[in-house]
Amino acid sequence: MPNNSLLKCIVFDANGKFKKISSDIQKTQLILKHDLLPRDLRKIDKGSDDIVPSILVREHSILLNILHIRTLIKADSVVLFNYDQTFSNDQLVSNLSQRLRNVTNDKLPYEIRALETIFMNVMDNLNSEMKVQVTVVNGILKELEGHIDMTKLKYLLLVSKKLQQFQQKATLIRDLIDETLAHDDDLVALYLTDKKKGTSRVTTDHEEVELLLESYSLHCDAIVQTVENSISDVKTTEEIINIILDSNRNELMLLGLRFNIGLLSFGTLLFVAGVYGMNLENFIEEKNYWFPIVCTCSLLTCGWIFRKSMHRLGQLTRIQMTK
Amino acid sequence: MPNNSLLKCIVFDANGKFKKISSDIQKTQLILKHDLLPRDLRKIDKGSDDIVPSILVREHSILLNILHIRTLIKADSVVLFNYDQTFSNDQLVSNLSQRLRNVTNDKLPYEIRALETIFMNVMDNLNSEMKVQVTVVNGILKELEGHIDMTKLKYLLLVSKKLQQFQQKATLIRDLIDETLAHDDDLVALYLTDKKKGTSRVTTDHEEVELLLESYSLHCDAIVQTVENSISDVKTTEEIINIILDSNRNELMLLGLRFNIGLLSFGTLLFVAGVYGMNLENFIEEKNYWFPIVCTCSLLTCGWIFRKSMHRLGQLTRIQMTK
Amino acid sequence: MPNNSLLKCIVFDANGKFKKISSDIQKTQLILKHDLLPRDLRKIDKGSDDIVPSILVREHSILLNILHIRTLIKADSVVLFNYDQTFSNDQLVSNLSQRLRNVTNDKLPYEIRALETIFMNVMDNLNSEMKVQVTVVNGILKELEGHIDMTKLKYLLLVSKKLQQFQQKATLIRDLIDETLAHDDDLVALYLTDKKKGTSRVTTDHEEVELLLESYSLHCDAIVQTVENSISDVKTTEEIINIILDSNRNELMLLGLRFNIGLLSFGTLLFVAGVYGMNLENFIEEKNYWFPIVCTCSLLTCGWIFRKSMHRLGQLTRIQMTK
Amino acid sequence: MPNNSLLKCIVFDANGKFKKISSDIQKTQLILKHDLLPRDLRKIDKGSDDIVPSILVREHSILLNILHIRTLIKADSVVLFNYDQTFSNDQLVSNLSQRLRNVTNDKLPYEIRALETIFMNVMDNLNSEMKVQVTVVNGILKELEGHIDMTKLKYLLLVSKKLQQFQQKATLIRDLIDETLAHDDDLVALYLTDKKKGTSRVTTDHEEVELLLESYSLHCDAIVQTVENSISDVKTTEEIINIILDSNRNELMLLGLRFNIGLLSFGTLLFVAGVYGMNLENFIEEKNYWFPIVCTCSLLTCGWIFRKSMHRLGQLTRIQMTK
Amino acid sequence: MPNNSLLKCIVFDANGKFKKISSDIQKTQLILKHDLLPRDLRKIDKGSDDIVPSILVREHSILLNILHIRTLIKADSVVLFNYDQTFSNDQLVSNLSQRLRNVTNDKLPYEIRALETIFMNVMDNLNSEMKVQVTVVNGILKELEGHIDMTKLKYLLLVSKKLQQFQQKATLIRDLIDETLAHDDDLVALYLTDKKKGTSRVTTDHEEVELLLESYSLHCDAIVQTVENSISDVKTTEEIINIILDSNRNELMLLGLRFNIGLLSFGTLLFVAGVYGMNLENFIEEKNYWFPIVCTCSLLTCGWIFRKSMHRLGQLTRIQMTK
Repeated sequence: MPNNSLLKCIVFDANGKFKKISSDIQKTQLILKHDLLPRDLRKIDKGSDDIVPSILVREHSILLNILHIRTLIKADSVVLFNYDQTFSNDQLVSNLSQRLRNVTNDKLPYEIRALETIFMNVMDNLNSEMKVQVTVVNGILKELEGHIDMTKLKYLLLVSKKLQQFQQKATLIRDLIDETLAHDDDLVALYLTDKKKGTSRVTTDHEEVELLLESYSLHCDAIVQTVENSISDVKTTEEIINIILDSNRNELMLLGLRFNIGLLSFGTLLFVAGVYGMNLENFIEEKNYWFPIVCTCSLLTCGWIFRKSMHRLGQLTRIQMTK
Repeated sequence: MPNNSLLKCIVFDANGKFKKISSDIQKTQLILKHDLLPRDLRKIDKGSDDIVPSILVREHSILLNILHIRTLIKADSVVLFNYDQTFSNDQLVSNLSQRLRNVTNDKLPYEIRALETIFMNVMDNLNSEMKVQVTVVNGILKELEGHIDMTKLKYLLLVSKKLQQFQQKATLIRDLIDETLAHDDDLVALYLTDKKKGTSRVTTDHEEVELLLESYSLHCDAIVQTVENSISDVKTTEEIINIILDSNRNELMLLGLRFNIGLLSFGTLLFVAGVYGMNLENFIEEKNYWFPIVCTCSLLTCGWIFRKSMHRLGQLTRIQMTK
Repeated sequence: MPNNSLLKCIVFDANGKFKKISSDIQKTQLILKHDLLPRDLRKIDKGSDDIVPSILVREHSILLNILHIRTLIKADSVVLFNYDQTFSNDQLVSNLSQRLRNVTNDKLPYEIRALETIFMNVMDNLNSEMKVQVTVVNGILKELEGHIDMTKLKYLLLVSKKLQQFQQKATLIRDLIDETLAHDDDLVALYLTDKKKGTSRVTTDHEEVELLLESYSLHCDAIVQTVENSISDVKTTEEIINIILDSNRNELMLLGLRFNIGLLSFGTLLFVAGVYGMNLENFIEEKNYWFPIVCTCSLLTCGWIFRKSMHRLGQLTRIQMTK
Repeated sequence: MPNNSLLKCIVFDANGKFKKISSDIQKTQLILKHDLLPRDLRKIDKGSDDIVPSILVREHSILLNILHIRTLIKADSVVLFNYDQTFSNDQLVSNLSQRLRNVTNDKLPYEIRALETIFMNVMDNLNSEMKVQVTVVNGILKELEGHIDMTKLKYLLLVSKKLQQFQQKATLIRDLIDETLAHDDDLVALYLTDKKKGTSRVTTDHEEVELLLESYSLHCDAIVQTVENSISDVKTTEEIINIILDSNRNELMLLGLRFNIGLLSFGTLLFVAGVYGMNLENFIEEKNYWFPIVCTCSLLTCGWIFRKSMHRLGQLTRIQMTK
Repeated sequence: MPNNSLLKCIVFDANGKFKKISSDIQKTQLILKHDLLPRDLRKIDKGSDDIVPSILVREHSILLNILHIRTLIKADSVVLFNYDQTFSNDQLVSNLSQRLRNVTNDKLPYEIRALETIFMNVMDNLNSEMKVQVTVVNGILKELEGHIDMTKLKYLLLVSKKLQQFQQKATLIRDLIDETLAHDDDLVALYLTDKKKGTSRVTTDHEEVELLLESYSLHCDAIVQTVENSISDVKTTEEIINIILDSNRNELMLLGLRFNIGLLSFGTLLFVAGVYGMNLENFIEEKNYWFPIVCTCSLLTCGWIFRKSMHRLGQLTRIQMTK
């Protein structure tokens, strides 16, 4: 028994005109009218958090669930679920309306035109999201090449997670299209108008819809490949950053050891000074000019060591990946 | 020869009424009555520690082994193994009883209704476990973004192991459903009532059970995809944490080297002081105002270095991944 | 031309009686009698170091090579190669003998009963090895959670290698069974008795052997899944140990830097003391009570720093993964 | 409705003569003439940034999109899109022209000769790019074996990214060829001349084109395998570099600790000197020969420690992978 | 048009007699005689650097390209390319000659005997290379268990690269055999003698060649599995070495911190000594026995610390993986 909570949807008629339906009574009628099963409604109600897209081909309808679009296509009407008035100037709605009106007198049947418009919208969405994702990833990778720091790494984490989610989404859509393409009977079953008219089609007579889906499969595959390319770039960069940080660490340790050696040598001076402290009175204390000489020499030496060290350290601090 | 240890089970009759059976004599009868093989019993006896789910379709029965459910479905009865009275108010038992009674006059045959109820229960179980797992993982990942510490990492280990076990479990169930869907003869063989009546079905006449399994396959796939998403998030976070810890380590080393340079410079002061110690008597000792000047200056310098160092160290201590 | 080196084997006759054959002459006869090819003999001679299991179905025999078992099954006899008298009280030999005698009047033909006994033995072997391996792995992982040290890590290496070898072994056996199950003609060809009698079977008439192999495939898959579970646990633990060691290292470095800061501050005291050393005579040396005050204060401070440091270090030393 | 922006292309006639076409009017005619769909044009317009290659077989034409080549093959003409006059001395254009003229009186039909020339060009391109990539990778890996430094690691990152993109590209082309080879109907559909003449071919009569594609599939597979080999070399080297850097770091730490021990021992000397400082007056100060002895000994010791340390450090600095 | 560069080859006639052919004229004749295509020659000319093996079955010949062997098999002759006189005592040549002469009156046709001999030679080659590789890998892994040092790690890199190349090679050969086995028509097409005689075979009549290839597929699979086993051992060892080096590093840092604490404590002594330096004159300087007591005590303490430190460090220096 379907739950009667509010379900907003937009219904297109055979001429592409659309109206918003959202009251309860109309909805129950709608369900009865469109042979929906209770479990279909559950899917539709779940909103847009559904990862796995699906095309369910029924006797007189196609139930499509892809990205944010939940739609029911019949031979003479299309229902877009979870859409309300605010979407009426949405691109999908206007495209659908125009394409279903069939101004160009396309020979494709009503349901295939609806399918095409929806897939075109899905591909446009995927394509623009892909462009954003890839641009963002390339940007952060380029910045990391310039300098590796914490903030950029944290941002890379965020970007990397989103990229993988997007890849999963696009891959599932491509697999869905390929799966549908692989089954001749599913392809033929998409011709709802013919089934309604009672015209029986041979299982292999589905060239238009095959060409259509093939083209979207190619398009979707191109998106998936581009994203996989980006993910592979991220992985490679991560690996090399790891090695570069390691290598940098070793150089820092080397420098530290050089300082230690410096300290040891300096210690000698200190020691001699300490020993001097007691004996100079015996030897040199009388000759006063020894004091400023020793003092100046050691101060100069220290200053020189200090400058050299700071310079060397400055070189190691900038961990850039580009020259 | 079947072992005769105690085996508790609940038997549903054709009208959905159920009774508990557990004494030895009844059990041996049960086995004879239901054409069970000794090796089936062994499987049932193993309890709920079985990883691989299975649907075995026999001549007059379906033996289902999935999650904690071990059940034998026939055309007019259902046996739930390893269930006793305490389960009589369990949701599976009550749902099965209600569905088998068929109040809504569903046209689906008895055995398909039993299958549907069991798969619905399995999906509900998987779904709630998934929600718990994903919530826990997201929680720990969010906390790790705030601060990386040992306790959280140890907890991540636990959570990560459980997540992978759950993914394995859900994937095996999805694969089982898909495997069954891929074989037309298996699907037709599920119609036990027809086989009992002697009605022969064509191999392709199995639409109801196909729709049913397809819907559960989609549902299960959505669970698997969500979990894989989570696992991929864990992996990405681990990789970035590794790089962040590395990067943090390099900064700590840099700071250490800056301290060393400070030490070297400070050493100069010490040295001069040491040299002073012997000569001041000759030069400045007479002018007492030199002592507080030198003393105050160096103390102020040290205090300033100390504050700066502690501040810089404090910045590096907090390894947060969010700004 | 077969090489005539000594080949020990046990031959079972149609009634399950077995005798040991090992002399050269008997062996050559045996080879002629059983239509073995020279290259089969080479396989048999290789001993038990063979990784890839195989089922070769010939016109009148089945040549089975699985785990340590190399056997030739005919319609009325079974030959176990590389077995000698010392094995006569081995479980496989006694089980085979009992099953071939067919006390329970099983309707399965001779060769299928032989196959079943051998697979049952193989599964028992795999199952007990799996239990040992998984227990050992869980043990070492639990110990590593308690404390990470070198000895445990080295032991993990050994255990991990063995686990992967076992997984490979079990997976190959499962794949062999699945491969056989996937070919209807192979399954039918297993019925040697029928072929001998000249009874021709339809390609799809192989239910008994299919049920049998299906059951062992499930069993073997359960073993493989359990082992993969363990391997995934090892991998996850390794990754988290890596991060924990990294995180621990950073904390050690932080502590080291705190010590350095302490050293710097302490240096101030030393410096002041050095400066004092020369001037006290002028100011405070006359007031003797200053000496014990300065002495006691600095000693107390040092003692306090020492205690705190040792305590903090002690906390970082124990790298436990459980609370 | 096709967009009418400028589209440059080269058209070959049945005798291999070619002319450049780029004006708008001719283009629209071209589209009508060649049964192109608007969405094909979109693909062609995209330029050479397309990752996924495709072979679309239409009723009277083959639309090929592979690497930088976008071409339409018909039974009596070939159109190369995105090519203009400047390409007229390009190797592909001259090869195509020569092969289509069919000087050697090849029995292959026009369209297969066009296909062969294009694939040969594609393979030549892939092959030369592979050789460059592999040479560059081997070079950088060899240099890294000699010494690991930042610049080489950064270069490895660049090279590694390009290698993976190339692998993706080559793999997609190989998969496209294999996919086409796997479908008998696609292979037969490539014979446009026969279709034009109305000669119907049996589905299995496509030996020439099969041999052709098989040969290119082998060639392409060889390229893919070589590249995967290189990628695997890069991965292995990265892993070993990581371990070598780790191992080097541990040795550096060991050396650092040895220095610390040296410092501790040296501290003893300092301490004794300090203590001496006050008491020598009582004991040895009178004997002046003690001073140069103590001084010289400690200076010699320090010098020796300094030399040894610098030498040891120098050994660890060079992290070479070859002896 | 075939290029006429020198091509050395050995030709076997129907009786297994072989002669060397290398002059240009003979070669062109050879090509005409054996229906070779120009692109086949290109493949043959490439020498032995070809990664992907292939079996090309033509109307009257089989062109085999596997490991270093490039051969053309016909119903009454075999041509080994790239072989010259110096190979005449090569094992492949002598085996081929003997097997083709067919002394044992084998019922296998000429071409199958040639195939068998070549595959046997290929398997022998793979097998000996596998044994060498696995021995070398096990050796270096065992040595790494004893002690991890740079030289061994560098050697592991070399060995690991070679192992992966070998795995790729063996896997490609196994896949080639399996691919051939999977196509009934390819198997039947191997019977050149029958095709020459005009005897037509049914597609399923290829038992001898199937048994033969099956046996080599098994053999090759065993090699692949052994190598994968080795590679997995290398991977596992690398991972554990990484963790062990990390763990060792942490222990080194702990030790370093303990030294620092020692330094701090020792600093106290120094400080007190410094303070003493000025006051002892007031208090203890009169009692001369205090000096040797303080001196001896501190020297003993230092000596004890030095010994302990060196001992502890010595323990951490040896990073062994075995007890």
